[in-house]
Amino acid sequence: MKYIKEYIDRNKNRFIDELIELLKIPSISADSQFKNDVLNCAEIVAQSLKDAGANNVEVCPTAGYPIVYGDKIIDSVLPTVLVYGHYDVQPADPLDLWESGPFEPIIKSTDIHPDGAIFARGACDDKGQFYMHVKAFELMMKTDSLVCNIKFMIEGEEEVGSQNLAPFVKSNKKKLSCDAILISDTGIISNETPSITTGLKGLSYLEVEVTGPNRDLHSGLYGGAVANPINILCEMISSMKDEKNHITIPGFYKNVIELTKEEREEIARAPFSLKDYKDALELSDIHGEEGYTTMERTGIRPTLDVNGIWGGYIGEGAKTVIPSKAFAKISMRLVPNQSDKEITKLFTDYFKSIAPKSVSVKVTPHHGGEPYVSPTDIIAYKAASHAMKTTFGKEPVPVKAGGSIPIVALFEKELDVKSILLGFGLDSDAIHSPNEHYGLFNYLKGIETIPHFFLNFTKMFKSN
Amino acid sequence: MKYIKEYIDRNKNRFIDELIELLKIPSISADSQFKNDVLNCAEIVAQSLKDAGANNVEVCPTAGYPIVYGDKIIDSVLPTVLVYGHYDVQPADPLDLWESGPFEPIIKSTDIHPDGAIFARGACDDKGQFYMHVKAFELMMKTDSLVCNIKFMIEGEEEVGSQNLAPFVKSNKKKLSCDAILISDTGIISNETPSITTGLKGLSYLEVEVTGPNRDLHSGLYGGAVANPINILCEMISSMKDEKNHITIPGFYKNVIELTKEEREEIARAPFSLKDYKDALELSDIHGEEGYTTMERTGIRPTLDVNGIWGGYIGEGAKTVIPSKAFAKISMRLVPNQSDKEITKLFTDYFKSIAPKSVSVKVTPHHGGEPYVSPTDIIAYKAASHAMKTTFGKEPVPVKAGGSIPIVALFEKELDVKSILLGFGLDSDAIHSPNEHYGLFNYLKGIETIPHFFLNFTKMFKSN
Repeated sequence: MKYIKEYIDRNKNRFIDELIELLKIPSISADSQFKNDVLNCAEIVAQSLKDAGANNVEVCPTAGYPIVYGDKIIDSVLPTVLVYGHYDVQPADPLDLWESGPFEPIIKSTDIHPDGAIFARGACDDKGQFYMHVKAFELMMKTDSLVCNIKFMIEGEEEVGSQNLAPFVKSNKKKLSCDAILISDTGIISNETPSITTGLKGLSYLEVEVTGPNRDLHSGLYGGAVANPINILCEMISSMKDEKNHITIPGFYKNVIELTKEEREEIARAPFSLKDYKDALELSDIHGEEGYTTMERTGIRPTLDVNGIWGGYIGEGAKTVIPSKAFAKISMRLVPNQSDKEITKLFTDYFKSIAPKSVSVKVTPHHGGEPYVSPTDIIAYKAASHAMKTTFGKEPVPVKAGGSIPIVALFEKELDVKSILLGFGLDSDAIHSPNEHYGLFNYLKGIETIPHFFLNFTKMFKSN
Repeated sequence: MKYIKEYIDRNKNRFIDELIELLKIPSISADSQFKNDVLNCAEIVAQSLKDAGANNVEVCPTAGYPIVYGDKIIDSVLPTVLVYGHYDVQPADPLDLWESGPFEPIIKSTDIHPDGAIFARGACDDKGQFYMHVKAFELMMKTDSLVCNIKFMIEGEEEVGSQNLAPFVKSNKKKLSCDAILISDTGIISNETPSITTGLKGLSYLEVEVTGPNRDLHSGLYGGAVANPINILCEMISSMKDEKNHITIPGFYKNVIELTKEEREEIARAPFSLKDYKDALELSDIHGEEGYTTMERTGIRPTLDVNGIWGGYIGEGAKTVIPSKAFAKISMRLVPNQSDKEITKLFTDYFKSIAPKSVSVKVTPHHGGEPYVSPTDIIAYKAASHAMKTTFGKEPVPVKAGGSIPIVALFEKELDVKSILLGFGLDSDAIHSPNEHYGLFNYLKGIETIPHFFLNFTKMFKSN
């Protein structure tokens, strides 16, 4: 299999340059002012699939941003792998914390990435990761080593909840039919310790609005006599967790499975240094649900976080105002057996129930997704594990992670196929944060690992 | 005294036009991008004093925005009245809630102001009110009826804490020496029920910053395991009041005087309809400290309000981020015997003490001011009360109010003179809010009442 490394060595500078071009497009799906950039990005992705050798390339319209499809069917008796990814990215703010422009990619070395990393919004999540598949596909085509059928589905609304993916999947079941789904939108423990994500949290994301008086008031004239919606919102948010950091929404934990002692011991075996963790984030102390370790808190426990809050005067200086309204964006990460629809309803009911009569509240669900567990005894997992063992020289650790990729539950339901989460990012890559980056090592290692997956999977499939 | 009404009748259109010109200047002291407008406003005010007949008009530089001075000394044996006001205004945001441009004054009728009101930022607070004094002075000069000495001191930093007024007053005691200070920066109960403010709350205004991790994090990867500074800030704010809405800062109420039964009965005698109050603000219920009426809560009890809060993603759509920092602007209104310096320290110490180890906090005091009580048995109060009785046909009610004018305590300390708070605004004038306005009735009634004050005060002073 020397040809894989050789092809990468010959082409790696171009692989990096092409990714840099893709990262220059501010394809922010959450912000409508970037609409043309998102649409343009879809066209560029479609062209990259064509250039790599895909057939039937289409920019498929949806009610939102388009889904890019392409395939290479070499023989209908061979197995088919569907590659999923997304070309949209998170908003880049706060802009002032970026050391270089979020859409002006540059390569810099870091302690963790001595060989360099590309800094740009979307470098890791998910342009850098889905583009590994485009380049691995090119490699297999150019070296005549594609041994099974491949389909691509790259969407443009993952960062805003993939609202239009479900209708697309439902009405294109035949087109998307496959034997395994391969997704690179997760991470590994470290560049020395490969891992494969076998569990993903679900998500319920809501926006709340608390209204007090019908207009902004002078806090001197009205302070103390009317409900200040900011104070009330703070009290309501505060009351959603108890002193042990358990979430207080009635019924919230109803369907959560408590792990066995053995399962918890297995989680504890993954390499983890609390000191390194705190040092990396410059934290004096960690903070979370009583009775659980950090790995359990992120991996197997449901959580509630305020992702944004605003109200009143937030400019320079001072203004003595009692605002009419205060707002927050709140998300909950869900674990297996919790349903995002049910949790969204429980949250909404509870939030309304704890509002004092002196305010009115509005709750708007943004998007949700079901939790997902991937088995480790299927051939797609084994093919991925062996591929990583070949390229990293070490068997990957199966890991349950806190991130949510709501579409994997959708794929299982609609296509009846499991997804393999073969991601190559690192927790320190700052996805969703300023200075997001993706290691060149990780990018190239991904391009190297993917062809091995296809070889392993086809071989195992045939002998199954 | 027919000449007063006659002069106003002949000149009222010009009085209104001149105020409208003044209101077009966005003299927002809190926002440095309006610096030139604030400076320009000072020059316009100085010119208006000259035009009205003042001598020694000066735009006095300070470390911040200048103070406009002017006087008319007719005889050193006669008493001297110092008029104080401010030409700076509050920020205008949220801009989208203004029905007309905040600096494009228009006249509209309302239920409360059937004769029309001028809508603009600063219309009531305080351009419309201090300008009444300029026009009343013009009236007295032009009708040769100024019976005592008058001095003007119009500052440009009231809305940001009057930081540079104290040094100015301290180093200009002789220039500012007077027998009474007259300020129109407060309100009356209604156009049918005149009142004079006899008590003002003090103010302590702070900004707090809560820092969790050293960078924004993905809430899927880190949620539940690290302190989310927004959640923590909400919990900290929430814990500053107990379930009875008492403020929990240790020592906060230490120096607060509980009113006697008689004093509370007197407060209860002021006309007040809870139904009208709730209806005007479209509130289902009021909200405040247990054991006190609405009038007591606003008038005589100290309060704590969040005036602004922000953190995380506040744009369109959803972003699953745990921000590194969250912020709030918090102010406390203080009552007699509370010291703003002491309360600022108590708040700071308490806020730091309740922060969990998982975050770091920073507290920055913005500005403060001492509470103030004005006696009703001095001739300046009596002169004002008689003037209102003459022009409204009804004796004004003495009222303790929640607003803070920190400089009145300063004047008493440095100049040893009491201030008379002869304001003509209404609570419904939306000061510090979108659609601030000032009734034409109130503006003209102020211009009519002020000359009567000067006549009464001089007469009483001479016979004292």
